[in-house]
Amino acid sequence: MAQMYDRVALIGLGLIASSMFWAIKRAGLAGEVTGYARSAATRQTARDIGLCDRICDTAIQAVEGADLVVLCVPVGVMGAVAEEIAGALKPGATVTDVGSVKRDVIEQVAPHLPGDVHFIPGHPLAGTEHSGPTSGFAELFDNRWCLLVPVEGADRGAVAQLRAFWEGLGSNVEEMDPDHHDLVLAVTSHAPHLIAYTMVGVADDLRRVTDSEVIKYSAAGFRDFTRIAASDPTMWRDVFLTNKEATLEILGRFTEELFALQRAIRTGDGDHLHAYFTRTRAIRRGIIEAGQDTDAPDFGRGKRKP
Amino acid sequence: MAQMYDRVALIGLGLIASSMFWAIKRAGLAGEVTGYARSAATRQTARDIGLCDRICDTAIQAVEGADLVVLCVPVGVMGAVAEEIAGALKPGATVTDVGSVKRDVIEQVAPHLPGDVHFIPGHPLAGTEHSGPTSGFAELFDNRWCLLVPVEGADRGAVAQLRAFWEGLGSNVEEMDPDHHDLVLAVTSHAPHLIAYTMVGVADDLRRVTDSEVIKYSAAGFRDFTRIAASDPTMWRDVFLTNKEATLEILGRFTEELFALQRAIRTGDGDHLHAYFTRTRAIRRGIIEAGQDTDAPDFGRGKRKP
Repeated sequence: MAQMYDRVALIGLGLIASSMFWAIKRAGLAGEVTGYARSAATRQTARDIGLCDRICDTAIQAVEGADLVVLCVPVGVMGAVAEEIAGALKPGATVTDVGSVKRDVIEQVAPHLPGDVHFIPGHPLAGTEHSGPTSGFAELFDNRWCLLVPVEGADRGAVAQLRAFWEGLGSNVEEMDPDHHDLVLAVTSHAPHLIAYTMVGVADDLRRVTDSEVIKYSAAGFRDFTRIAASDPTMWRDVFLTNKEATLEILGRFTEELFALQRAIRTGDGDHLHAYFTRTRAIRRGIIEAGQDTDAPDFGRGKRKP
Repeated sequence: MAQMYDRVALIGLGLIASSMFWAIKRAGLAGEVTGYARSAATRQTARDIGLCDRICDTAIQAVEGADLVVLCVPVGVMGAVAEEIAGALKPGATVTDVGSVKRDVIEQVAPHLPGDVHFIPGHPLAGTEHSGPTSGFAELFDNRWCLLVPVEGADRGAVAQLRAFWEGLGSNVEEMDPDHHDLVLAVTSHAPHLIAYTMVGVADDLRRVTDSEVIKYSAAGFRDFTRIAASDPTMWRDVFLTNKEATLEILGRFTEELFALQRAIRTGDGDHLHAYFTRTRAIRRGIIEAGQDTDAPDFGRGKRKP
């Protein structure tokens, strides 16, 4: 793969940024990759494991001269970081992000950026329940979607270059409108995460069943929920606070539907339950056929760092 | 492993029974294994793939002379099957089952069985979203729990023999009271399944997000839900109808907790959300430490049929 940017700056060094670094190196997509994290301990860890070609002690140093700046911080602090680096951005540079919410990030970041910088928000649909600079691996984005959400009037050349960069990281790329993005993600990711968090919390609260029993006899359903509910608390707090409307809308629909199923259980309406469960089974088949998951042992989560 | 029963009869030939057969053969736990399924097509498939040493055309033929009879049918028909086979059971035989609910199964089955038969209900905590006679594999029970729920006054020798049999299949075995079993499973399995079914149904219903988008951009959270929601509809209908009280209790707690988190999102209470998500993350760590899941690529679902 050809080099796409002379210098890439990764701001925030968690799972996504560290995976991006290893994937950039795998494909030779950048001349130099600089990195910055707010915490001195994270910067030290990054230096220790060879994460980034150069770790900087300030965000400003990291973005100086960069052709591509990737904001990999929690959604709640995107605006503050943009404000901090705005004055140091190279004219003609592209700024992107990897946040799970797009409308709010655009409103936070866009006002701070100079007019000679291309702002092209993005969202790679990839992750694990692990976080931090040591959790990354080069294969994270392979065959996963990356959604680009260019603001109106975005430079098409810059968008095409960023698309090629994400394809070089292994992703399939599509463009989407920010509000539609936020609704789709509320359905496929944000609401399911909140629901999983809730169920795991309920299990922990129940007096008559001990935690150790819950843990010991954790059958398939609950085990998957705990995996989801182990995701980074700060990231997810920010997702819910910044994609409030769409998440609450989906949760409202969810509650309505759950009440209907509860009523079917209470009244013994087996036909209703059976028909519902048959329909959901078909949806799963669609997902496997669409290639977003596999029938194989790792359930499509892909390779992980050894 | 030594032979434990001269003849084992498997009634119902789905995922659990077919896995039991392959695991029995792997360890040499029985002299002969007979099998019966209500559907002629299932019996033919079983014969075609060599499932069971002998497939019988009636449940009565299958249990004749059997030292261990395992009811592997949906929970809703356990009583009818017990009634059908009761007269053909060998004196001194052990009858067990693999149903996900125990109080209701005991009430359905026990009244039909003759006094000279040992009834020892059981529940292997193992499964995949696949069902039917071709879905089984010998490793399904390896290092998974099997809960035995002996009724009062059960013969301790017969219980010990059944325990050794399940250990031979690869399981860890514990005994539990039926009502406590039903509550623990409501928390760890039944309520999570209903919740996953609900969320997948909501996604399918939403007009502004197409099914193909949901499928295409199915991120980790939703993908796990669809796997759970692909489980056998008949089995799960029966689980909810027969473990009604405990399931409704847990769902009530769940809804209460979900409303509190929704309120935190609506009011922007980030501290509440962050604290909640931090607590659930710790529970996940407990599960990994308890060995019921792993950090490895297959997420502890174990080996599957090639």
